[in-house]
Amino acid sequence: MSTLHDTRVHTFASDNYAGAHPAVIEALADANGGHVASYGEDPYTARFAELVTERFGEGTTVHPVLTGTGANVAALQALTPRWAAVICATTAHVYTDEGGAPERLGGIKLLTVPTPDGKLTPELIDRQAYGWGDQQRPQPLAVTITQSTELGTTYSPDEVRAITRHAHSLGMRVHMDGARLANAAASTGASLQELTRDSGVDSLSFGGTKNGLVLGESIVAFTPEAEAGVTFLRKMDAQLASKMRFVSAQFVALLEGDLWLRSAAHANAMATRLAEGLAALPGVVVTQQVEANGVFVVLPVEIIEPLREAHHFYDWNRGTGEVRLMCSFDTNEGHVDRFVADAAELMRHP
Amino acid sequence: MSTLHDTRVHTFASDNYAGAHPAVIEALADANGGHVASYGEDPYTARFAELVTERFGEGTTVHPVLTGTGANVAALQALTPRWAAVICATTAHVYTDEGGAPERLGGIKLLTVPTPDGKLTPELIDRQAYGWGDQQRPQPLAVTITQSTELGTTYSPDEVRAITRHAHSLGMRVHMDGARLANAAASTGASLQELTRDSGVDSLSFGGTKNGLVLGESIVAFTPEAEAGVTFLRKMDAQLASKMRFVSAQFVALLEGDLWLRSAAHANAMATRLAEGLAALPGVVVTQQVEANGVFVVLPVEIIEPLREAHHFYDWNRGTGEVRLMCSFDTNEGHVDRFVADAAELMRHP
Amino acid sequence: MSTLHDTRVHTFASDNYAGAHPAVIEALADANGGHVASYGEDPYTARFAELVTERFGEGTTVHPVLTGTGANVAALQALTPRWAAVICATTAHVYTDEGGAPERLGGIKLLTVPTPDGKLTPELIDRQAYGWGDQQRPQPLAVTITQSTELGTTYSPDEVRAITRHAHSLGMRVHMDGARLANAAASTGASLQELTRDSGVDSLSFGGTKNGLVLGESIVAFTPEAEAGVTFLRKMDAQLASKMRFVSAQFVALLEGDLWLRSAAHANAMATRLAEGLAALPGVVVTQQVEANGVFVVLPVEIIEPLREAHHFYDWNRGTGEVRLMCSFDTNEGHVDRFVADAAELMRHP
Amino acid sequence: MSTLHDTRVHTFASDNYAGAHPAVIEALADANGGHVASYGEDPYTARFAELVTERFGEGTTVHPVLTGTGANVAALQALTPRWAAVICATTAHVYTDEGGAPERLGGIKLLTVPTPDGKLTPELIDRQAYGWGDQQRPQPLAVTITQSTELGTTYSPDEVRAITRHAHSLGMRVHMDGARLANAAASTGASLQELTRDSGVDSLSFGGTKNGLVLGESIVAFTPEAEAGVTFLRKMDAQLASKMRFVSAQFVALLEGDLWLRSAAHANAMATRLAEGLAALPGVVVTQQVEANGVFVVLPVEIIEPLREAHHFYDWNRGTGEVRLMCSFDTNEGHVDRFVADAAELMRHP
Repeated sequence: MSTLHDTRVHTFASDNYAGAHPAVIEALADANGGHVASYGEDPYTARFAELVTERFGEGTTVHPVLTGTGANVAALQALTPRWAAVICATTAHVYTDEGGAPERLGGIKLLTVPTPDGKLTPELIDRQAYGWGDQQRPQPLAVTITQSTELGTTYSPDEVRAITRHAHSLGMRVHMDGARLANAAASTGASLQELTRDSGVDSLSFGGTKNGLVLGESIVAFTPEAEAGVTFLRKMDAQLASKMRFVSAQFVALLEGDLWLRSAAHANAMATRLAEGLAALPGVVVTQQVEANGVFVVLPVEIIEPLREAHHFYDWNRGTGEVRLMCSFDTNEGHVDRFVADAAELMRHP
Repeated sequence: MSTLHDTRVHTFASDNYAGAHPAVIEALADANGGHVASYGEDPYTARFAELVTERFGEGTTVHPVLTGTGANVAALQALTPRWAAVICATTAHVYTDEGGAPERLGGIKLLTVPTPDGKLTPELIDRQAYGWGDQQRPQPLAVTITQSTELGTTYSPDEVRAITRHAHSLGMRVHMDGARLANAAASTGASLQELTRDSGVDSLSFGGTKNGLVLGESIVAFTPEAEAGVTFLRKMDAQLASKMRFVSAQFVALLEGDLWLRSAAHANAMATRLAEGLAALPGVVVTQQVEANGVFVVLPVEIIEPLREAHHFYDWNRGTGEVRLMCSFDTNEGHVDRFVADAAELMRHP
Repeated sequence: MSTLHDTRVHTFASDNYAGAHPAVIEALADANGGHVASYGEDPYTARFAELVTERFGEGTTVHPVLTGTGANVAALQALTPRWAAVICATTAHVYTDEGGAPERLGGIKLLTVPTPDGKLTPELIDRQAYGWGDQQRPQPLAVTITQSTELGTTYSPDEVRAITRHAHSLGMRVHMDGARLANAAASTGASLQELTRDSGVDSLSFGGTKNGLVLGESIVAFTPEAEAGVTFLRKMDAQLASKMRFVSAQFVALLEGDLWLRSAAHANAMATRLAEGLAALPGVVVTQQVEANGVFVVLPVEIIEPLREAHHFYDWNRGTGEVRLMCSFDTNEGHVDRFVADAAELMRHP
Repeated sequence: MSTLHDTRVHTFASDNYAGAHPAVIEALADANGGHVASYGEDPYTARFAELVTERFGEGTTVHPVLTGTGANVAALQALTPRWAAVICATTAHVYTDEGGAPERLGGIKLLTVPTPDGKLTPELIDRQAYGWGDQQRPQPLAVTITQSTELGTTYSPDEVRAITRHAHSLGMRVHMDGARLANAAASTGASLQELTRDSGVDSLSFGGTKNGLVLGESIVAFTPEAEAGVTFLRKMDAQLASKMRFVSAQFVALLEGDLWLRSAAHANAMATRLAEGLAALPGVVVTQQVEANGVFVVLPVEIIEPLREAHHFYDWNRGTGEVRLMCSFDTNEGHVDRFVADAAELMRHP
């Protein structure tokens, strides 16, 4: 097979438009050859589990899966009984972008709360945390938060702890959708363990794809309750890779050194640079704190389409001219500076 | 990351114990770099679609997915309304090995028929094909057959056609679980198109993983009815790869030349060699026609465990001493001959 | 068995606190004795079907079921493919009061729109009616409206027609949750047929329990598409009564004469009388048009608990002191006048 | 409404062809009038709960539901986590007659075992009781048995205890589908408590409809684990009656005196009389022990259709001429003797 695309193209559309880090492709080659047991009984999955324990703390378990949707659904199912509802932000990926999978595949009712910045708080959770024992109401038995959020903001360890304490005091468990957890770690300076286990999180969808993998997600469980059943749910949710060595090996490449952190920190830095560059332009409003790899910004409406043609990105709010600009491990200063320069130029000569 | 396993080890346990064909790893590297659209709007998925049309016929569509379970569930959901039941052999993977996913994830009731060789026939289908309009009975609206079967046998195009004609005449659609379709093509000498579209199959789970991919399956639809909804079902079944270029590129590597056929034909040939070698030994009974890459054989009970230690394989029927021996694209004559020799030696000196 | 409750007690809590109309109990006795076929092949179900055709128009079909939740779920499932989402008001019973059954039992994603009065309009529907073909988004393929609404308001035939025209033009079907359809007919003066079939509604949950039955709901289908599958969905949703004669006979008692309309008109009249009485008191605000049998009213906070003790009713909005007062077929002028007098008295001497 | 059927007609088709016992209709009238709380907070449901405690033992709880399918699904869901499979006989109602509801509505994989007489044993259970921890296999975590069985046989308390001991020792819970439990009690002479709680059963679907109710089933839980969640599952399975007093009052009529036992004993006696009468005829073979209210019998093929015309009954096995004859609380000696006489006459003059 030959390369069918122009490998020089860069966009601000999504961290899924980026490819894989070269070290990840190498890891696939290294894991290849010969026979190893399928369905997770291989040395790469064992090594991944070791690394998860090192990064997240003793007693933590990990189950590789295939999609973020699959990770979220199986993790939430494991965390709750059949009659549970799960509280989330209105902007949560699990609510807006998963094709109804949590409800349909998972049988989970989602109870949503509007937020200004994609972040839940104990007070916001309380807007849906009621009605236990009321047979008419789906029972709120878990909360899921996204770290970093769909709006490019992050939770500090203290903020996570406030949520888990509140939720636990009400008999609810806490799941974290960590599709971009690495970006939050890079941004807050907190370790993976501090952001999750040490802050009281019960269960985590730990993402790899958005941080430079070919394809790979995982469910990390911090308590025996969060762990029970994940093995079986993974299979019945069609998330069990037969040649699992290849999913795990990618995560090993990510976690063995600091590739996970370097890639995320770099993407974050590019986003900050981009936001600063744009904020200096007249008529541009950065609408969210830039704490991870996404920039939300209102652009003058007349420059949006010509700018999109050159750099590709998605609208966030067509009404207000707000767009979302995502940076990746492979975004560089040239990409960022060209975007800002093009925006400035288009303002001058629309 | 470094290689953590002994790449010289070979087993007869499963075609999932094998790794990926080197050309597949190369394809991943070739598809890497730069940005392409996610979720299927990339040139590799477009090329894969072209190749599917070439191999399976005009008007055929393809949707890459992630697991065989996911392919089967989404394909069967697309093919049937909510109240359908699907007829399958008692040995069908969809019934025995998918953790209840068809029922739970897919909402599909399976109606099973025992078979001697893993193959359905019009007569066997009739054992469950009744009760349309009876509101108490799940409505049999589709049949699924496995090609090649879980017992290493294959359907000829005529046999497939007999099934699809019969099923269609009863208002039922026909799905083929083609996790090992390539082996059936190699074995029967029929083309992919002859075995599927030309034989009246409505929808196919076209497998890649068992034929040397890192990870990749797909749903191939031959009719507009089989196609409608697959796009949405794929997402709600958590089977939508974000960086889809990497799934599709592997299939391009498989289908662009004859890698798909060479690998399958080789695995089949190894299985035939193995069966012939074993059949020549006293007390060994080959229990199924060897038409693909699996050998089902009753071994003298005293040699099973020592033989398993050296070559690893799975029991099929512990009661009778029947075991399953699977060959892969990377099984070679040395592996086969050593197995037969070891078996012979163990018989002489148990 | 003897009577265990005080049959003189009346409340404003719910039309489900009321018992059954005496004619309904008589109908059960009349339908009793001897043997008739089960599961719907009986003369009472046939008669019910005749009456539905008379009331709703030629070609209409009916399927008795057991709960409003069951009727809504099976009707919406019949109306949509597996990948559909359904648009509804945020206040819709199907969203707030059914324990997640539409999502979990039905596999249906609900897309909600806030409304001031419980009523959808073409404009409000448009807030969720987008994204067809977008594989990430549950596909909006139906709209469900409640008639009369959960806020005691009603849709005129013109309003229904505007909705069905708009929805149909977008490829969406329209379901009506008619748990209190009779109240809407009594209020608008339109016939059952004008409010449904003639206004373009595809499928209806036609309620009986809230209008004086012991227990009985039904699914009325106006098109072949809405009808297909209801028979099977009813069973797989656990809504198939074995001795169906007893469900159907109650509906026959309701529809054979004008009991359905008399009961509803009476309950509506009582609600209007109640609203007028209360509106004349200082500090009382009636918050919704009283078009059916429910009154939504803000009461002075200090009279709520003593008033509740005597008359029982539910809070609607604890923050504002808004309560919901429901009238039934058995509410009489004495009950209403006593409530108003008690409220007036409590204001004077709290 | 007037009576639309001939109340003198009797059949041997099903205990669902029979109507309700007159005392049950009376109970509905007695429970009518005035207002009581809905959804189970009424004195009839409280009284039903008291009676269940008296009949089944201290600590037992009961939840009225609407269909046998609904009772079975919600009871099994409550008893098991999301990843469970349930072992049952191939003839179990839950497997053959519920439209796939256990799988689709309940998300429960059923693992079936063929039996000669509809009864499971520890040995038969072992045919499916394996594979715990195997992620590919739905986990067998419960067993469900039918009492009396679909083949008219019954389990003695000792037989039930052998099953529950065995199942519990393997970590599985035991559910009893007691749609005809009263018939088993009448047949074995054991009390309801001896047949269930005292024999180690965890959870029971306690049927009313087949024993003379208009419509009513219930879930009886014997352990806190079986109880947890039933309240919420009942709602999300669309089994929550709003005017629950009317379901509960029927059960009160059944259980307050000995109506439940008299009706069942009478139906059993009629079945025994019928079997004895038929067994005396040449060429007739009674194929199952007659221990409840059903008779399974092979009739000379030429008399089946004329006999069916007069008495209505269903085929059990068309191949062998085996038919099923069901007796009800309202079957009398005249009905039975006429059937036997007609059969004898038809043999003489076919």
